[in-house]
Amino acid sequence: MTTYYPTIPTINFEGNTTTNKYAFRHYNADAIVGGKTMKEQLRFAICYWHTMTADGGDPFGAGTMVRNWEGATPMETAHNRVDAFFELLTKLGVELFCFHDADIAPAGDSLEEWFANLDEITDHIKTKMDETGIKLLWNTHNAFSHPRFANGAGSSNKAEVFAYTAAQVKKGIDLSKKLNGTSYVFWGGREGYESLLNTDIKFEQDNIANLWHMAVDYGKEIGHLPQFFVEPKPKEPTTHQYDFDAATTMSFLQAHDLTDYFQLNIEANHATLAGHTFEHELHVARTFNALGSIDANQGNPILGWDTDEFPVDVATVTLAMVEILENGGLPKGGVNFDAKVRRTSIEMDDLVLAHIAGMDTFARGLKNATALLEDKFFENMEAERYASWKGALGQDIRAGKTDLKSLTAWALENGDDITLESNHIEYYQNVFNDYLAK
Amino acid sequence: MTTYYPTIPTINFEGNTTTNKYAFRHYNADAIVGGKTMKEQLRFAICYWHTMTADGGDPFGAGTMVRNWEGATPMETAHNRVDAFFELLTKLGVELFCFHDADIAPAGDSLEEWFANLDEITDHIKTKMDETGIKLLWNTHNAFSHPRFANGAGSSNKAEVFAYTAAQVKKGIDLSKKLNGTSYVFWGGREGYESLLNTDIKFEQDNIANLWHMAVDYGKEIGHLPQFFVEPKPKEPTTHQYDFDAATTMSFLQAHDLTDYFQLNIEANHATLAGHTFEHELHVARTFNALGSIDANQGNPILGWDTDEFPVDVATVTLAMVEILENGGLPKGGVNFDAKVRRTSIEMDDLVLAHIAGMDTFARGLKNATALLEDKFFENMEAERYASWKGALGQDIRAGKTDLKSLTAWALENGDDITLESNHIEYYQNVFNDYLAK
Amino acid sequence: MTTYYPTIPTINFEGNTTTNKYAFRHYNADAIVGGKTMKEQLRFAICYWHTMTADGGDPFGAGTMVRNWEGATPMETAHNRVDAFFELLTKLGVELFCFHDADIAPAGDSLEEWFANLDEITDHIKTKMDETGIKLLWNTHNAFSHPRFANGAGSSNKAEVFAYTAAQVKKGIDLSKKLNGTSYVFWGGREGYESLLNTDIKFEQDNIANLWHMAVDYGKEIGHLPQFFVEPKPKEPTTHQYDFDAATTMSFLQAHDLTDYFQLNIEANHATLAGHTFEHELHVARTFNALGSIDANQGNPILGWDTDEFPVDVATVTLAMVEILENGGLPKGGVNFDAKVRRTSIEMDDLVLAHIAGMDTFARGLKNATALLEDKFFENMEAERYASWKGALGQDIRAGKTDLKSLTAWALENGDDITLESNHIEYYQNVFNDYLAK
Amino acid sequence: MTTYYPTIPTINFEGNTTTNKYAFRHYNADAIVGGKTMKEQLRFAICYWHTMTADGGDPFGAGTMVRNWEGATPMETAHNRVDAFFELLTKLGVELFCFHDADIAPAGDSLEEWFANLDEITDHIKTKMDETGIKLLWNTHNAFSHPRFANGAGSSNKAEVFAYTAAQVKKGIDLSKKLNGTSYVFWGGREGYESLLNTDIKFEQDNIANLWHMAVDYGKEIGHLPQFFVEPKPKEPTTHQYDFDAATTMSFLQAHDLTDYFQLNIEANHATLAGHTFEHELHVARTFNALGSIDANQGNPILGWDTDEFPVDVATVTLAMVEILENGGLPKGGVNFDAKVRRTSIEMDDLVLAHIAGMDTFARGLKNATALLEDKFFENMEAERYASWKGALGQDIRAGKTDLKSLTAWALENGDDITLESNHIEYYQNVFNDYLAK
Repeated sequence: MTTYYPTIPTINFEGNTTTNKYAFRHYNADAIVGGKTMKEQLRFAICYWHTMTADGGDPFGAGTMVRNWEGATPMETAHNRVDAFFELLTKLGVELFCFHDADIAPAGDSLEEWFANLDEITDHIKTKMDETGIKLLWNTHNAFSHPRFANGAGSSNKAEVFAYTAAQVKKGIDLSKKLNGTSYVFWGGREGYESLLNTDIKFEQDNIANLWHMAVDYGKEIGHLPQFFVEPKPKEPTTHQYDFDAATTMSFLQAHDLTDYFQLNIEANHATLAGHTFEHELHVARTFNALGSIDANQGNPILGWDTDEFPVDVATVTLAMVEILENGGLPKGGVNFDAKVRRTSIEMDDLVLAHIAGMDTFARGLKNATALLEDKFFENMEAERYASWKGALGQDIRAGKTDLKSLTAWALENGDDITLESNHIEYYQNVFNDYLAK
Repeated sequence: MTTYYPTIPTINFEGNTTTNKYAFRHYNADAIVGGKTMKEQLRFAICYWHTMTADGGDPFGAGTMVRNWEGATPMETAHNRVDAFFELLTKLGVELFCFHDADIAPAGDSLEEWFANLDEITDHIKTKMDETGIKLLWNTHNAFSHPRFANGAGSSNKAEVFAYTAAQVKKGIDLSKKLNGTSYVFWGGREGYESLLNTDIKFEQDNIANLWHMAVDYGKEIGHLPQFFVEPKPKEPTTHQYDFDAATTMSFLQAHDLTDYFQLNIEANHATLAGHTFEHELHVARTFNALGSIDANQGNPILGWDTDEFPVDVATVTLAMVEILENGGLPKGGVNFDAKVRRTSIEMDDLVLAHIAGMDTFARGLKNATALLEDKFFENMEAERYASWKGALGQDIRAGKTDLKSLTAWALENGDDITLESNHIEYYQNVFNDYLAK
Repeated sequence: MTTYYPTIPTINFEGNTTTNKYAFRHYNADAIVGGKTMKEQLRFAICYWHTMTADGGDPFGAGTMVRNWEGATPMETAHNRVDAFFELLTKLGVELFCFHDADIAPAGDSLEEWFANLDEITDHIKTKMDETGIKLLWNTHNAFSHPRFANGAGSSNKAEVFAYTAAQVKKGIDLSKKLNGTSYVFWGGREGYESLLNTDIKFEQDNIANLWHMAVDYGKEIGHLPQFFVEPKPKEPTTHQYDFDAATTMSFLQAHDLTDYFQLNIEANHATLAGHTFEHELHVARTFNALGSIDANQGNPILGWDTDEFPVDVATVTLAMVEILENGGLPKGGVNFDAKVRRTSIEMDDLVLAHIAGMDTFARGLKNATALLEDKFFENMEAERYASWKGALGQDIRAGKTDLKSLTAWALENGDDITLESNHIEYYQNVFNDYLAK
Repeated sequence: MTTYYPTIPTINFEGNTTTNKYAFRHYNADAIVGGKTMKEQLRFAICYWHTMTADGGDPFGAGTMVRNWEGATPMETAHNRVDAFFELLTKLGVELFCFHDADIAPAGDSLEEWFANLDEITDHIKTKMDETGIKLLWNTHNAFSHPRFANGAGSSNKAEVFAYTAAQVKKGIDLSKKLNGTSYVFWGGREGYESLLNTDIKFEQDNIANLWHMAVDYGKEIGHLPQFFVEPKPKEPTTHQYDFDAATTMSFLQAHDLTDYFQLNIEANHATLAGHTFEHELHVARTFNALGSIDANQGNPILGWDTDEFPVDVATVTLAMVEILENGGLPKGGVNFDAKVRRTSIEMDDLVLAHIAGMDTFARGLKNATALLEDKFFENMEAERYASWKGALGQDIRAGKTDLKSLTAWALENGDDITLESNHIEYYQNVFNDYLAK
């Protein structure tokens, strides 16, 4: 059998003193952390697009990547990629994956041909899944790359584009059923607007909601209703994207009665582009009981676009893992590396090294977060800060026993004696730092 | 009677060829634009805080402003300010105003004393209102400046602070009733968090919702239910504020069943700090039927904090006025200059000149927006862009007659023929520019 | 003779009441403004890359543009583009152009072949120049798109890449001589670093300086020394680019003794990405006597990457034109539209419409700036602000007649009486607005 | 003798397993790291302003801090602060300090009185210095807080303000001589502009240069020439500050012949406000042989203003320490905590805890950086990346033996064979992470 990574062994845990590049320094799949194996806790997934189709190009330069899966025809390349992808998954010990329709099979000359290509390639994928036990985490449709989507997909100014998108969504759910996918994602890369001069937001958003309801209805009809996820992003490619951040997306889901079927897939770099931290977006999602899955990557705070770098910031990942653990994990989601190697990491080996870096970082985050939770680091701090809500006044307020009049009476009598207490935040930051190397 | 602006006449419209500093160049209160007087269309209001209490200080320097209303005691100063404020309103022809409790009366040594001071000063204000016909647009409570609010007010970690805030809210609604205010604002300057390490967002947000429901209940009880407004702001003073932007605020109002009583007060500079344009936030508010009022100012795009400059950007104000006119005006709101003179505009006269600048700019915006709407500039552009939704396919989709299967059938047959059409946006931008000088 | 714009007439001035899309609303080439024709004042140039080679693609989607110059071979396309380009220049009445080596001729299979292609295409260009009287403003080398430049060109970690770049620079200067170019530009898109972990800035910058000195020496040697320009940009594609902004670039030119031969080419969108305004960068360049040329475009302040939109912001362009007029124009430079049509402006006609928009905006800026200068708007304001420097103390300080001791003596006697005076900035902003429609 | 920190012991090193809040977890003053004691390597200093005079106020709220040094008169408070400050320095084991003139002594009613107050308080400080062995790192003048400086100090539009500033600078240098200060800082908080409409940058910058030359001349004259430092900051309080960043400041020093006497004092939070990383600014300063000292703090990447938080980001501090060690330390500078406790860290104890956090973080950075350098982590990576410059071609170029012609000849022969090599940056980032816990 052909190998695409002839020099790469199965990656094993060797600890952080190893000098072997092709080993995990922190990720030990079967080690128990917080009562489960790391593998169960982290539910790693790899995305097809960055890993199998990104070529290192950017708006100022051509592709740089050296890849060995190019075939004589687009379909041959597509088949080669399937084998190469499952080899990589296997060697890394990653058991979940994600894809867009456009990633896995060439569009050909017609929608009909594309669907046929998708059928053929997913047959191949299914075979590899059966062979390896690797599972589909989620799939999605790419309704942003082709010129027809320049003005949006579900939100397009053209009904025809809406219809075309609907066909992709149906096919996507059909493929999800075929491959037994757990969830299905909507990312609205062109769902938004470039100029408000020529845009009717309400009209466009109603159309998106209509499309999403159709997806729910269809899933019910065919007896395969994946957990739907929406992935917020504030901008890029579109100047203003409708799913700006977690809270904005929830305002849409609530307004259109979609919260029963949709949760959020939060991406780190999208969070930072929106002016938030990753952990903020995760926490906000939790306040709506809507944290479903994550795209694990990072941006560069001095750049204003999505760089989708492999996550290597241990502090951020630790805080993210706290949110995930507090969420009871991501039962229908996972830690999907929506991350691409840098334009100068051109070799096949870099794909391996980069995923190792990301997996090691999340392993560290898991260990650190578990220690923080076991030591009740946050819990104790918050218990102290919020202590007064356990008192009589606080309990009465929380129980709905007070109103503006009764509280005014209280305040006139006692309000002048309120004092501010220190949060001692610098002290906690210093201790927190020592948790980053558990 | 004392005058605080002895050299300032009543400001009249003289047109943009005038060399008189103390004249409007564009704002002509009684001129008819779009079927109503400018005054009716624009509903200008002046805020007490920036105009009467700001001293020009910043984190790196002391106050600079030269003001002539300082008295021998805080209450004497407070009374002087009332007279000076109504003189300014009258000379500018502005018929609405806004205030925080903390702006108008000194806190004294106890909450009881503060309430007494508020009663005394609002008696004075009421007298001036009766004399001049000037009305209260909205008032609000300042629950962010005193140290007790360092960790929030409704979202404070201390139940005592919540109770104190509730007392201020009750008093605020009582004053609203006394002065017959149209609306009442909640701005959550410290409702948010500095560090997620020590914060439980859900707990804090539930408390805010509780407080707001109490305000609704109390308004109903006393037979004075002002239109409540929330004013989104993403950050500053707090690192992350809960009411980040319009959509985020709506997600909260929806989740806590508050949309019947609360609308949005959108501020230009808060919009830009959130990574949006002003017109975006206004348009989003409209999609939720929640555009209530505006704070009219502008920031500096190269600075990362709220500068609250007087609005002088004609293009932005024109687009804002389009949204306001499309909204049917701001019947329970107004164009409130939440704007402060720059630190180097230290003279009393600058207060007059700055408001003239803002009012002239909104007058220009109103004229431009009216022309754009009368010429159907946007309407025609959108009609052309969205034309396909008027066709059979589009109408069927909008009418709920399609599903993923029927649309897939359509797409398999017709989808390959979809073409992208140009938006010609550069052409429209060029023509749009000529509308900026109507 | 083939026409590429069969439906586009020569674009004439018709004034802003015209309903003809294909007419100037403000730019009237031969009208006298400020003592010269608009054409002489503005020195418009069009860049080859955005206009002839951009396809509307972005990192999330394929090209969208509909172009009619594609030929059967790369060289046939290249020849077609020359004709189409000169047709566009002629129809717009633009008499200057700019190009990168990579824009005009395909690279072929070797450097030798590329150079031959460049010779052939520049023969064609020269013929068109002779026919039309259109002139070369500046050319440059593209040393950032090919994968070999992923780590820089003059600053590459590989000496071989440096040598390759040197060959392109030599060829560029040779072509400049052949086409009698006025100036020659260095833009360091990959001259910078992605990670400081693996970068020696000093080493890399010394190499760049070496290359630039070689260019000067070669120009002298062949008797064709164009005015060299450096074009600052802070980031993108590279995380940190060495020529961050005007001042940074000047620090480099000073440190490496290059100020006699190099000036700055300031781009609007690069200025804003660096956290500045366009007019700031122009003004800073002037303080070093180094304002040579401009790239005329604009970004979107809510986006963090270069959008290179056609300039339509009249206020910004007015302030830019003030700087250019104060500079005595741009005798060796011009107003080069380094601007691309939006991804959704896909038609050939949009290229025409977009340049009209940009030229009209600069025409407006020129008219406004001329009026501002003729009315001494800035001059009078500054004369008043800086008046004290005309007094005895100020003149002594400026003349070098004071020292810390004498000034301390002055301050001990008089310093307590210093008062702050108002800048009245809001008033001036309001009047300034009326200059934006001259 | 009065103690201001009665419950705070001398802070000792106890290691990161300690549960004692009042102990260092990583900083062990006398431990040898990299051949010197930590104390010698780190040269910690504390600044007077944030620690002794900051009250926790912000633009939206009053001061929050609880301080026990307030006296009956401003001078009594000033004396109390001296004692409290030296007690804190002593308990923390910090042997250097910094101050502005305005921090240490009240301005009184005249410049003469202020100077007298400064003399009296510096007598007190001198006594404490002699008692404790603590030394003055640097002092500076505050020429930005008083209203007279609203339009700048050296760059003021008023000659009188320039003269006043000169008097402060002279007094500052006199105090430096009296207290045997090592260096003297210029920070230009208001040296810049708010509106280019009314500003002549060249005129203002020439005045600043004039002032700085006067300072050099005076230092020479009195036989006490401290090392002068300039502290770049891009904005805040002023919209655009002249000393935007390290490179901009160097362009000014070069243009005005000041590089022999001035180096840079780089602040972390100012670096990030300028769109850089801290390590970038340090590295750039080194390329000009101008890295003199640092202000050690950090900002919050999601905020657009200076938060001056205590530095607790280990990764950033590690990279900063690499630069400092590569610089041969900061012989005339130090690690000055220009950092303030958060508004909610209101207790006296928080001043201690926050400095411990900062000192521990720098201790970690020092240990990590030393390990990185000893292991040649960067050196080896760079040696590999730049290897080709050690070859014949590279050496010839570096030696000045090549020109555009010879390099073109090389490129025509060899250029087509150039290949790009991977930087493997993700691999190095993963290994780097393990250095963050040395």
